[in-house]
Amino acid sequence: MEPAWQSSSVEAPKAGERPTFAITMGDPLGIGAEVIVKSLADRDLRRLAKFRIYGIESVLADAARAANIEPFWWRVEHDSPLVETAQAHDVVVLDWERRGGEFGFSRLPRAANKLAGELSLVFCDAAIAAAKREARDPLRADGIVTGPICKQAWSLAGFGRFPGHTELLGTRFAAKRVAMMFVSPRLNVVLATVHVPLMEIRDLFTIGTVFDAIDLGNDAIRRINGSGRRPKIAVCGLNPHAGENGILGDEEMRIIEPAIKVANDVGIDARGPFPGDTIFISAARGEWDLVVAMYHDQGLIPVKLLDRDRAVNVTLGLPTVRTSPDHGTAFDIAGKNKADPGSMRAAIELAVRMAGSLAPA
Amino acid sequence: MEPAWQSSSVEAPKAGERPTFAITMGDPLGIGAEVIVKSLADRDLRRLAKFRIYGIESVLADAARAANIEPFWWRVEHDSPLVETAQAHDVVVLDWERRGGEFGFSRLPRAANKLAGELSLVFCDAAIAAAKREARDPLRADGIVTGPICKQAWSLAGFGRFPGHTELLGTRFAAKRVAMMFVSPRLNVVLATVHVPLMEIRDLFTIGTVFDAIDLGNDAIRRINGSGRRPKIAVCGLNPHAGENGILGDEEMRIIEPAIKVANDVGIDARGPFPGDTIFISAARGEWDLVVAMYHDQGLIPVKLLDRDRAVNVTLGLPTVRTSPDHGTAFDIAGKNKADPGSMRAAIELAVRMAGSLAPA
Repeated sequence: MEPAWQSSSVEAPKAGERPTFAITMGDPLGIGAEVIVKSLADRDLRRLAKFRIYGIESVLADAARAANIEPFWWRVEHDSPLVETAQAHDVVVLDWERRGGEFGFSRLPRAANKLAGELSLVFCDAAIAAAKREARDPLRADGIVTGPICKQAWSLAGFGRFPGHTELLGTRFAAKRVAMMFVSPRLNVVLATVHVPLMEIRDLFTIGTVFDAIDLGNDAIRRINGSGRRPKIAVCGLNPHAGENGILGDEEMRIIEPAIKVANDVGIDARGPFPGDTIFISAARGEWDLVVAMYHDQGLIPVKLLDRDRAVNVTLGLPTVRTSPDHGTAFDIAGKNKADPGSMRAAIELAVRMAGSLAPA
Repeated sequence: MEPAWQSSSVEAPKAGERPTFAITMGDPLGIGAEVIVKSLADRDLRRLAKFRIYGIESVLADAARAANIEPFWWRVEHDSPLVETAQAHDVVVLDWERRGGEFGFSRLPRAANKLAGELSLVFCDAAIAAAKREARDPLRADGIVTGPICKQAWSLAGFGRFPGHTELLGTRFAAKRVAMMFVSPRLNVVLATVHVPLMEIRDLFTIGTVFDAIDLGNDAIRRINGSGRRPKIAVCGLNPHAGENGILGDEEMRIIEPAIKVANDVGIDARGPFPGDTIFISAARGEWDLVVAMYHDQGLIPVKLLDRDRAVNVTLGLPTVRTSPDHGTAFDIAGKNKADPGSMRAAIELAVRMAGSLAPA
């Protein structure tokens, strides 16, 4: 079987040439470095693509030492003239620290920290800049895999207007619409709303919001499955029992049903709205390719309960692929060589798979 | 070991005398009759207590015939003078239909129906009346187990002001506070809000609402576990990531944290608020005796995903025990002998267990 990326479209790399992925380390005080090092320690994974890690090399080296892993990367300072020649290497660490460990992250408490917040956003912005480069540019990234950041640290660093990666990426790419999807062995879930206070959903909840989640999710599943079959999509209700025919809320009738109808009109096999508390049972049995959840916990409770450590977060609606592991900085276990790299590994694999079938932006 | 009910308190039956439970059939067109018949077909279950089924005998008989179960009950018309003498029997069906099948439910489509809605509420009211009788009254019920009703049918019948059993029972018993709890093999969950449109939670969400759920849940778990150990209770946040330190909503700080503090002040071991999307993972591992969820889907998605067909719904705050299976009328499979009685059976067993340690009202 040919590797997935050889079935690439316009912007994907030439056949025979491996794609390049930008991996951001996330918050230097979290478990990002550890799960990246543990994932890429596997040669088979490294063979799939070229990887550029945006981060702090001393933190990666500490994680490798703790896990008894031989360093497998080429280090170069992020703003060095040597960055371009370093591209010959399979795994390059673009280091934001001067040699010598000026930041001293190994001595800082594992908690929200302003400098860590600033750097973790800087890594993202550099990865985004690489993804925006022309297809033939040697510094171009064909996709982005992000390590976990600490939102409180972003807030301390003055980036509180971005509740997370998804919103940052949407802004930087000036995406007209973005959605957050979770891909895991038993469940694929896309969220219609994400990082908003629950009671403020009311202000964003429109037919377009729900339709966009259905439509972007449908595109993504086609790309992942790579088959001609139309994805079968279940749409959740917002209210208990999906509003129970209007008795427990009217958003199903006013917003969700019309959104499903629009989706059906453009040829998408979406159905519902179904009660949130039962639809995931049939989805977990494989009866649906995708569930569209209306808000964060509705979609993430089942994903994390069923497929913890194996779920991947995917940002839809961008002109590049973006995946990330479905966990946070886990400060409580950071630096202790206890982190499970399963989700990061799955995120890297999914990015490779999706980049191979990325439609032109 | 002595049977649980022999450790009974004031209102429970005398030692050596079995308690009596009122079982309502629920909507005659749903699967209630079938799961009751299949559960009580087990002699071991029947030995635990006396059971009075409030419903339509012809529907129960149809379900028994389809399941190849020999009828095991004594039928009496609900308003007959013979009701009192019938109490000598272990299982009595209080029949709302005259002999001959005047209602003809076997010929009606399995869907929301006004007559079925009326009757299913009448069964409940009769069971409630039995539960309100004096301790020594031969017609008294020591607890109520309810079969699934159709809320749309209640609405058609003019009872739309009761979104469900919980609210009806709360009103009929003039309970100052009620809460809905789910007991299942891997998870026990109590809900702070239940059958309200999601966006209207804002109007009911107070420190008292959250505290009541914690407090009532704590009492119930003590009753179920029957041990001196303090229940360990996890309280969910309302917002994504439990508000992420106020970045994604302030209900955690304004309402949930103060409610937990009040609970701690009265000696309850409640902690949180924890993010809804991760707390159920540790709860399913057995790290918590109870999770307090803020709204319907937050609590029921995990319960149904992990313990479908084995979860029991319990109403807290009433002067009697009330349990019910955690499923609806399932019109799509009603009358087809396909229903799983696991949840009804568990509801009956839990009612027997809780009645044995019911504190005086």
